[in-house]
Amino acid sequence: MSDKPATLDVVGIGNAIVDVLAHADDRFLEDQGLAKGAMTLIDATEAETLYAAMGPGIEVSGGSAANTMAGIASLGGKGAFFGKVRDDQLGQVFRHDIRAIGVQFETAPAVDGPSTARCLIFVTPDAQRTMQTYLGASVELGPDEVEEDTVAAAQITYLEGYLWDPPEAKAAFIKAAETAHGAGRKVALTLSDSFCVDRHRAEFRDLVDGHIDVLFANEDEILSLYDVPDFDGALQEVRGKCDIACLTRSEKGSVLVQGEEVHIVDAVPVEHVVDTTGAGDLYAAGVLFGLTNGYELATAGRIGAICAGEVIGHMGARPEVALDKLVKEAFG
Amino acid sequence: MSDKPATLDVVGIGNAIVDVLAHADDRFLEDQGLAKGAMTLIDATEAETLYAAMGPGIEVSGGSAANTMAGIASLGGKGAFFGKVRDDQLGQVFRHDIRAIGVQFETAPAVDGPSTARCLIFVTPDAQRTMQTYLGASVELGPDEVEEDTVAAAQITYLEGYLWDPPEAKAAFIKAAETAHGAGRKVALTLSDSFCVDRHRAEFRDLVDGHIDVLFANEDEILSLYDVPDFDGALQEVRGKCDIACLTRSEKGSVLVQGEEVHIVDAVPVEHVVDTTGAGDLYAAGVLFGLTNGYELATAGRIGAICAGEVIGHMGARPEVALDKLVKEAFG
Repeated sequence: MSDKPATLDVVGIGNAIVDVLAHADDRFLEDQGLAKGAMTLIDATEAETLYAAMGPGIEVSGGSAANTMAGIASLGGKGAFFGKVRDDQLGQVFRHDIRAIGVQFETAPAVDGPSTARCLIFVTPDAQRTMQTYLGASVELGPDEVEEDTVAAAQITYLEGYLWDPPEAKAAFIKAAETAHGAGRKVALTLSDSFCVDRHRAEFRDLVDGHIDVLFANEDEILSLYDVPDFDGALQEVRGKCDIACLTRSEKGSVLVQGEEVHIVDAVPVEHVVDTTGAGDLYAAGVLFGLTNGYELATAGRIGAICAGEVIGHMGARPEVALDKLVKEAFG
Repeated sequence: MSDKPATLDVVGIGNAIVDVLAHADDRFLEDQGLAKGAMTLIDATEAETLYAAMGPGIEVSGGSAANTMAGIASLGGKGAFFGKVRDDQLGQVFRHDIRAIGVQFETAPAVDGPSTARCLIFVTPDAQRTMQTYLGASVELGPDEVEEDTVAAAQITYLEGYLWDPPEAKAAFIKAAETAHGAGRKVALTLSDSFCVDRHRAEFRDLVDGHIDVLFANEDEILSLYDVPDFDGALQEVRGKCDIACLTRSEKGSVLVQGEEVHIVDAVPVEHVVDTTGAGDLYAAGVLFGLTNGYELATAGRIGAICAGEVIGHMGARPEVALDKLVKEAFG
């Protein structure tokens, strides 16, 4: 453990993305050859072609770890974020939104090169989201953007698996994890997407086994990581590999494991599920806030469920109401 | 009447704006000195200062007449829009969204000068919206952008009162109205905002008296136009001044007047009113669609009420569901 008290709860590192969300039907996904429910990387030309075919949209700041940091700030937690935008209008939107919700964000924008990253998100009538990401300026995030003092000052450094895709971001990831552990802090990872796990399975297994203290994964991702056919098999595999594993199962709720402790936390009922974008990100926000603010593991899981329940009730992956109030109401 | 059949239902002319919406409380409005419920013009510096103080936002295409055209297209109507954006990211968003919903939009973007117009919209817990608009590139809309063939091809040319603010746009307004009447078509106007009416009262009275066939106004606006203390007084004033007047009264519904005909149309009950931005714009969409597609005046009013009911149920002034389906469901 560090000998200095932490001044931040969590520092998040991830792709800095503005989401463009539109409704679409399954037929559209088929016609465009999109993998439903997944995150697929696309280049600038593909992004332009797909945007032209997309319905009218709304723009909301996104990015997996950035959404999580927004959630932590909305819960009243102290957080910072590293991620790269361009100095363009969407970059201004990203910077404004993350700061406005209360997250420290000082990464300098790129002054040339590709534009701010965009994720085209197609929301089908079943509230499922299908994401096509143009990484743009976010691929320019590298180790230089990881400020060691900030990482050392945070109880937990939180990393998204998506960082494993751009090579420089992977180097930033490794530097952040080493800095955090060197300062006696903890490192958390979300596996992000089952296709992302497919792309980097061996490396992710090594990471989880040796370097990650808190792991977040949904059912598809954890099955993919251990190449097992059912959830219980994955649960047995992950136990003991990292200190804490938080496994989400959509409407079935989540399972949190720490050594011999196993907690099964129900999902929070939502009257009308509109868009599941950000459900995992906001679940992680609740859990990380709980863990860094003195709550028991099971309570942290319940805070995660409340945050996920809020974000799936509307379009976009950032909270629309103050999450600290929601939690206060729920716990009476 | 024109001797050529119209190939378009409506052509709209207005400011081409991207809305930035955020929740705020009344205290914030007071602290910032904002006139609740109104639209106030701000310059680039004021926009920057206010944006910095604003909470995290969502970006959705807006602009009063543009919202109306989006509604008409969503109802299945044929429409076109003239309005000026810059060739920047928000301009691309505006162009994409209006085309994606099915509106013809060919106005060339400005290649230099101010950026695409933005409207900072503060939505208070009572679902009221307070708008601060930076007109940016939209002030460069002028008579040259008004394509006479398109105007002559539309049954109705629809103009927003906000055009009276930028001088070039006012010239575009006059050219469009004259072109429409010269081709035997009709001209519709929305008064837009009571402060806008205050700024241009005498000119608006002249317009309504001599040049407007279909007038849209909410209660505040029509009271301001005729400087009368109550709604019934305004109703008596406006009768006979233009062919059709459509007066909206929020939850009290609307009143449509044409000569001796007077229809009182109830508002459509909405379970949870989230954001009233665009309510008037979408009401106008329903009425204009009705009038140009062979419906009786009272039915046109009911279509307007359905469209307004949809848009106040979510953040943003553009429809989130296909309005033609909603109307079909309502009329069985």
